[in-house]
Amino acid sequence: MTFLQEVVDILLAYIVESFDRDTKVIDFHYPNELLQRNNWELQDDPATLDDILISCRATLKYAIKTAHPRYFNQLSTGLDMVGLAADWLTSTANTNMFTYEVAPVFVLLEYVTLKKMREIIGWPDGRGDGIFSPGGAISNMYAMLLARFKMFPEVKEKGMSSVPRLVAFTSEHSHFSIKKGAAALGIGTESVICIKKLCKQLSFIPLQCATAGTTVYGAFDPLIAISDVCKKYNIWMHVDGAWGGSLLMSRRHRWKLDGVDRANSVTWNPHKMMSVPLQCSALLVREEGLMQNCNQMHACYLFQQDKHYDLSYDTGDKALQCGRHVDIFKLWLMWRAKGTIGFEAQIDKCLELSEYLYNKIKDREGYEMVFDGKVSLHLTFTLLKNTVHGSLTQVAPVIKARMMEYGTTMVSYQPQGDKVNFFRMVISNPAATFEDIDFLIEEIERLGQDL
Amino acid sequence: MTFLQEVVDILLAYIVESFDRDTKVIDFHYPNELLQRNNWELQDDPATLDDILISCRATLKYAIKTAHPRYFNQLSTGLDMVGLAADWLTSTANTNMFTYEVAPVFVLLEYVTLKKMREIIGWPDGRGDGIFSPGGAISNMYAMLLARFKMFPEVKEKGMSSVPRLVAFTSEHSHFSIKKGAAALGIGTESVICIKKLCKQLSFIPLQCATAGTTVYGAFDPLIAISDVCKKYNIWMHVDGAWGGSLLMSRRHRWKLDGVDRANSVTWNPHKMMSVPLQCSALLVREEGLMQNCNQMHACYLFQQDKHYDLSYDTGDKALQCGRHVDIFKLWLMWRAKGTIGFEAQIDKCLELSEYLYNKIKDREGYEMVFDGKVSLHLTFTLLKNTVHGSLTQVAPVIKARMMEYGTTMVSYQPQGDKVNFFRMVISNPAATFEDIDFLIEEIERLGQDL
Repeated sequence: MTFLQEVVDILLAYIVESFDRDTKVIDFHYPNELLQRNNWELQDDPATLDDILISCRATLKYAIKTAHPRYFNQLSTGLDMVGLAADWLTSTANTNMFTYEVAPVFVLLEYVTLKKMREIIGWPDGRGDGIFSPGGAISNMYAMLLARFKMFPEVKEKGMSSVPRLVAFTSEHSHFSIKKGAAALGIGTESVICIKKLCKQLSFIPLQCATAGTTVYGAFDPLIAISDVCKKYNIWMHVDGAWGGSLLMSRRHRWKLDGVDRANSVTWNPHKMMSVPLQCSALLVREEGLMQNCNQMHACYLFQQDKHYDLSYDTGDKALQCGRHVDIFKLWLMWRAKGTIGFEAQIDKCLELSEYLYNKIKDREGYEMVFDGKVSLHLTFTLLKNTVHGSLTQVAPVIKARMMEYGTTMVSYQPQGDKVNFFRMVISNPAATFEDIDFLIEEIERLGQDL
Repeated sequence: MTFLQEVVDILLAYIVESFDRDTKVIDFHYPNELLQRNNWELQDDPATLDDILISCRATLKYAIKTAHPRYFNQLSTGLDMVGLAADWLTSTANTNMFTYEVAPVFVLLEYVTLKKMREIIGWPDGRGDGIFSPGGAISNMYAMLLARFKMFPEVKEKGMSSVPRLVAFTSEHSHFSIKKGAAALGIGTESVICIKKLCKQLSFIPLQCATAGTTVYGAFDPLIAISDVCKKYNIWMHVDGAWGGSLLMSRRHRWKLDGVDRANSVTWNPHKMMSVPLQCSALLVREEGLMQNCNQMHACYLFQQDKHYDLSYDTGDKALQCGRHVDIFKLWLMWRAKGTIGFEAQIDKCLELSEYLYNKIKDREGYEMVFDGKVSLHLTFTLLKNTVHGSLTQVAPVIKARMMEYGTTMVSYQPQGDKVNFFRMVISNPAATFEDIDFLIEEIERLGQDL
């Protein structure tokens, strides 16, 4: 207990530091250097508890401060104190979601929360099904699995050789997990058709994945138009709202997902825009019972049929996983603490910061928008060639490397299609302010001035 | 910070209570009753921090005390203080395994630990590959994915329609995740051939899953014999050591896995016999580079090729997941604290308790072994009909329901094949003692005496 309290003291100090703008976001070292800076090797003999405390401090010293108000590098940023407390409680409870028997409260909270999320999507009385999965990629894979099973239930027993060629339509800006899912499920990546316009002539059995908040541009597919096509051709409609789904909680912004209630399934990751600690990803499904039929294998050592309680709360056989980590409590407790209006305010603020950045650089000399930031969830922009001496391709990587070496801020960059490296500025950190946005632009200009 | 410390105080009190034999393992309530006992609903408006603390206390009040020395219900039990501290640190660091950029230390620790595990398996110089995945079912699915890709790399792009019918051979006692994986991957459950003996005539392209520590009986497949067949017919050999893999750390017991070094892949879950907090499951792969080739999709927003550090540390594209929870730190820190010899002692002790139970009941009146406990990882036994008035089928469920209502202990039961309900006694809890085993038997007899 003394040991645990000592670790807690280290963690509390780290948290205070993480929110301090005078602290570096990152104390960067190259992999080989970091390997040598500490003794990370595993030994036959035990270490002392003092050594263990030293290891904890070293680990945090070189960690990225993802809670730092100037950390913009990923879709998941920030650190919520209630969410963190909930995650600590989850670790302490150290149990498994597969049965009510071993996780009674967490199973009920998952039930309550999924129902609430389905109500927000707009499905009647919040009816339907769902599961918290290990991330948006797996949630999307679940959707593909369900779409296939819905059309060809025999695929479960007989495999893909029993069904016609399957095709998934999606936009060219959809997340790469659609292709990973297609590869894993035996559909094949060549059967993922990336479309610019909707295909009207379908020769194969399709599923459609629309994206609400694309990874690179933060753009929204037109869900109503897509749902019309899906209805006409009897296509399973999945909405990947891993990033943008949280906008459903904002009365000001939820119109961007108009038509989401027509989807068959929706991915929605509270660990992104809602700043729930990693991992927390939900797949919501409109049809009840389908997940169970699709995935169940009736393991009799877990799902005994003669238990003394209502077996519908043994949700484990719906999952691809056997054991499943408890991801629900941090979301549920944060929702209690903030209320729906608290999440709404947090999301609105992130989008306001994004708009502020848009207005700041849209006419600024030397910048060019890569994608129209006005309708986007985040901003992509590039520094123009005429402001720099070298090749435009090298500008963003060099500035980013310098950011990491100075440790002052972190933002992502990438190429896309015929566009060379541009910055992709994501704001999901509730601790960020207008001043942090100002700082970012100043820092980009300072670090890039000699280029 | 005050709030976090208040939650920590609640958690510390819960931990002390969990290890106290005078505390109930479970304060059981039926789902509908539990739903009504507290206000679990999510509201529009925020709750006060005091309300949040009340919610934390209520959640723990109805939680199962998985650390309790008399909790034997699952393969994952116990609570290690160093592991818990490491999990709290992980939550606080709140980052993602996909790139070195955002998880430098954790990526290195995964590298160091996987290498060590491969050395223990016996692969030369610990070479090979691997990943920590969200549980044994996903680790097994990875193995099937790799086996398929190794034989037919075109399946990634072209899907299952481009390859011959695939078959997976496994024992009838293998884990249900093999079938779940086959269903998901488009192989189909009918192509999972559950064999009693090894097939010598293979008409299809197969992969073989051997089990080291079966879920129900804790039995070991003969890995050397299986590896001979696999070699002869060029079959991918996967060893599902989710439960039994940890025995590799015991000089006394590792002979049960002799031949594991001949496998192409091994699942090994430190969250089971090694008592690492949930979740912590590793897939180890003998061939380097295969995982990357099998799963990579080159997402340019994460895996930029012009970063300033060694890109081999950006391990995310090997994974099926995009974001991946940090599961490594708790294992690494426990390994540091215990040393390899500490894990060995812990595992040996669990098996000693199992042997003690075996000796206690093998000749005891009214008991029958379901499976020869002498070579097993855990014990399955049944109460005999002549000691009870009712039907033998009902005995175990009634005793189990009473255990949960009294809250004194928890142990699993199940039917299997033509065998009616029997008890399945798993010992992985380092806090359990000989007295707790005595207590379990007395409690079974006390709760079942009127049956």
